[in-house]
Amino acid sequence: MNPKLEFIFRRRSVRKYTDQPVNEETLMDLLEAAMAAPSAVAKDPWNFILVTKRATLNQLTEFMPNAQMLKQAPAAIFVCGDIKRAHGELESYLLQDCSAAIQNILLAATAVGLGSCWLGVHPRPERMAGVRKVFHLPEGIIPVSGIALGYPAEQPEPRTRFRPAYVHRETW
Amino acid sequence: MNPKLEFIFRRRSVRKYTDQPVNEETLMDLLEAAMAAPSAVAKDPWNFILVTKRATLNQLTEFMPNAQMLKQAPAAIFVCGDIKRAHGELESYLLQDCSAAIQNILLAATAVGLGSCWLGVHPRPERMAGVRKVFHLPEGIIPVSGIALGYPAEQPEPRTRFRPAYVHRETW
Repeated sequence: MNPKLEFIFRRRSVRKYTDQPVNEETLMDLLEAAMAAPSAVAKDPWNFILVTKRATLNQLTEFMPNAQMLKQAPAAIFVCGDIKRAHGELESYLLQDCSAAIQNILLAATAVGLGSCWLGVHPRPERMAGVRKVFHLPEGIIPVSGIALGYPAEQPEPRTRFRPAYVHRETW
Repeated sequence: MNPKLEFIFRRRSVRKYTDQPVNEETLMDLLEAAMAAPSAVAKDPWNFILVTKRATLNQLTEFMPNAQMLKQAPAAIFVCGDIKRAHGELESYLLQDCSAAIQNILLAATAVGLGSCWLGVHPRPERMAGVRKVFHLPEGIIPVSGIALGYPAEQPEPRTRFRPAYVHRETW
């Protein structure tokens, strides 16, 4: 693992957090990083919902079995795409663009000392309906994923899951 | 822009490259970074095709109007998902997982001094068919995007496209 790329290998899913809150300035840093991602034809179809209210964080766990750590997390960001703003109004671009922004948030979180965990929402109908209801999403706004955030109470080791079998040269 | 996040703001689409080739070790660094991305239930449905043959790079430009810089680029990586390996065999997860890996490649490229450009393939039928044919992709292997790579002959300034209108607090 090239030490110049440590900022990538150090990012691991962190599901346990201390009680320390995440301040406004840090959340804005993460969103500046998110919106530095590339998007198809620079359409930037993303939207970000910052969540720090305890009641809302708890409510999200009712329909997101993968998001139980939100009961303990001090903050979360939910990423939703606007299908009207996506290139060609195509869901594929919306998902790709929002995912690039999410990955930037995860790496930025790691770089500023936060732990984070990607919480899948799309394409699970029950999770999408729950997120839609909790945040009162308008029509055409598609929830993609959430990100749990907090100062880490666990420290997984840097790693890659590199597998030579997934690498092809010049052709399949 | 928080200087700790410079590694994110410095990544810009670079479409002009010098003649310097990209060596094997550097390409492997990028793939180690790619496979350090998170994926839904750690299914890692991604595959990577390394392309350095001039004839193949040129051939790709015949059906990818957005990829004309490949005529000059010394290398490219094409990222394809295996639908059978995707969580629940769902295309949405395949796209999200491959996009996180692609974003890691772009940031890793920047960190090692390379320029890069995300080249959309999915969901354009003619581009998908072209990629499929050039690389002889088996059934169930879905081309997502390509990445042009080379040492930069242009140096766009670091930036974010942060827009306050895309930020929502606690609810939409």
